[in-house]
Amino acid sequence: MTTRTVISDPADPRLDDVRDLNHSDSRPDLPGGKGLVVAEGPLVVGRLLESRYPVRAIVGFKNKLDSFLDSIDASLVEGIPVYEVSRELLAEVAGFDMHRGLLATADRTEEASVAQVLENARTVVVLEGVGDHENIGSMFRNAAGMGVDAILFGNGCADPLYRRVVRVSMGHVLRLPFAHLEGTYTTWQRSLEQLKEAGFHLVSLTPDPEAEHLEDALAGKDKVALLVGAEGPGLTEHAMRATDVRARIPMAPGTDSLNLATSAAIAFYERDRSQR
Amino acid sequence: MTTRTVISDPADPRLDDVRDLNHSDSRPDLPGGKGLVVAEGPLVVGRLLESRYPVRAIVGFKNKLDSFLDSIDASLVEGIPVYEVSRELLAEVAGFDMHRGLLATADRTEEASVAQVLENARTVVVLEGVGDHENIGSMFRNAAGMGVDAILFGNGCADPLYRRVVRVSMGHVLRLPFAHLEGTYTTWQRSLEQLKEAGFHLVSLTPDPEAEHLEDALAGKDKVALLVGAEGPGLTEHAMRATDVRARIPMAPGTDSLNLATSAAIAFYERDRSQR
Repeated sequence: MTTRTVISDPADPRLDDVRDLNHSDSRPDLPGGKGLVVAEGPLVVGRLLESRYPVRAIVGFKNKLDSFLDSIDASLVEGIPVYEVSRELLAEVAGFDMHRGLLATADRTEEASVAQVLENARTVVVLEGVGDHENIGSMFRNAAGMGVDAILFGNGCADPLYRRVVRVSMGHVLRLPFAHLEGTYTTWQRSLEQLKEAGFHLVSLTPDPEAEHLEDALAGKDKVALLVGAEGPGLTEHAMRATDVRARIPMAPGTDSLNLATSAAIAFYERDRSQR
Repeated sequence: MTTRTVISDPADPRLDDVRDLNHSDSRPDLPGGKGLVVAEGPLVVGRLLESRYPVRAIVGFKNKLDSFLDSIDASLVEGIPVYEVSRELLAEVAGFDMHRGLLATADRTEEASVAQVLENARTVVVLEGVGDHENIGSMFRNAAGMGVDAILFGNGCADPLYRRVVRVSMGHVLRLPFAHLEGTYTTWQRSLEQLKEAGFHLVSLTPDPEAEHLEDALAGKDKVALLVGAEGPGLTEHAMRATDVRARIPMAPGTDSLNLATSAAIAFYERDRSQR
């Protein structure tokens, strides 16, 4: 049974989860960060409700709540408070106009261990130094769509549960397993040993024209871990040395390297193709 | 010989090209549209100078002009007026802060004909209904990087010379040949006949799971035209019927289709791979 409450006072503490929304999704260890998981729009709110994150509240405009609650299995929202607000009120509380008119917040949960996400995985991505939320979001969207089993974070990556990542990933960051590898800028690469021990063939993606063609690098491999570095600097030499092979996507001379989420999507395609 | 002029009056008519910049790049047939080609930042301004578009002026902050003019072949800027402005002045004239501090404007030129861009081309992309500037920009960037020879526009696409497209394409829209196919929503598909007559194998990209695997659709083909539709609706049935084959990128069940620039990049990769 869901109880819907109409709220018309912007100071109502039941709206604290969505107050000053540009800050409340920051990591709990950062100033002002509440560390909440925030989902926006019916598709992503639906995926949050189906995820392992315990949902705290659903907030929305009357018409958006009506159609959303009509469209889902009622058991998904059982016991979750639903707050109905006007567009003006939500804009005032959140700090900007939320034209989608539907939000849900959840608590973070303890992250899975690397061993847990590697169990039963055959294709994983490992990111290093990827600080751009949009790139991380696209990576999750593409990985989920193209049969990648998990994403692992090496040193220097942005928070995957940041609101913008949740949105760009279309909620797939809430479904696809991920975990963080331990270590600093120069030491995290040692934790790649775990992947080797689990039988993964480690492949660095690089624009280096001396590297192997992606097709050759992936041909006939059982388990594969694809390493992707930040746009611009790419993977550190430390990271590439810890892998089995350096693979390139052929590029026309005199052009720029591809966006990293695009490069990774091409590698996901080739990985799938190589197993046909 | 280049003459650099310092301008300190925001009303100076020599700055009219960059005045109210959020509007001046609109197509000449739209209200307020001057139809200029606008390049931002040293990389893209350099590509504009090397392009077929006649450059009208270069505008920038002192330090940005110094380093840019030092870095390029002086003959590229011969006879082109260079206007030095402060950051504050440029922000006032352009209507927003231009942190890159370097701009160039050019006139549009007559577009190439379809026959001209098909000459010597072996791989082309045909877009239908793609109204998103960012997608068009990414398409040019990826096409240039991955050996595609030209982009053709079917009905309903956004203007490829819009400022945002120029920026997102990293200036490749100024280099890669493009042309528009004639016709309306329901008739433009007939102009695909031109491509068939020129020997192109026409391939529709679709998420339809009944379609052929992309690898099979492209195997052993000489000339290929890849058709890509808008995100969401995809290609019209009309357009797909005019092609030789419908091709899909395999997707995991229950996931969303890929971003269209990403799908196209995967097709460019497969096209290149199929010719190894």
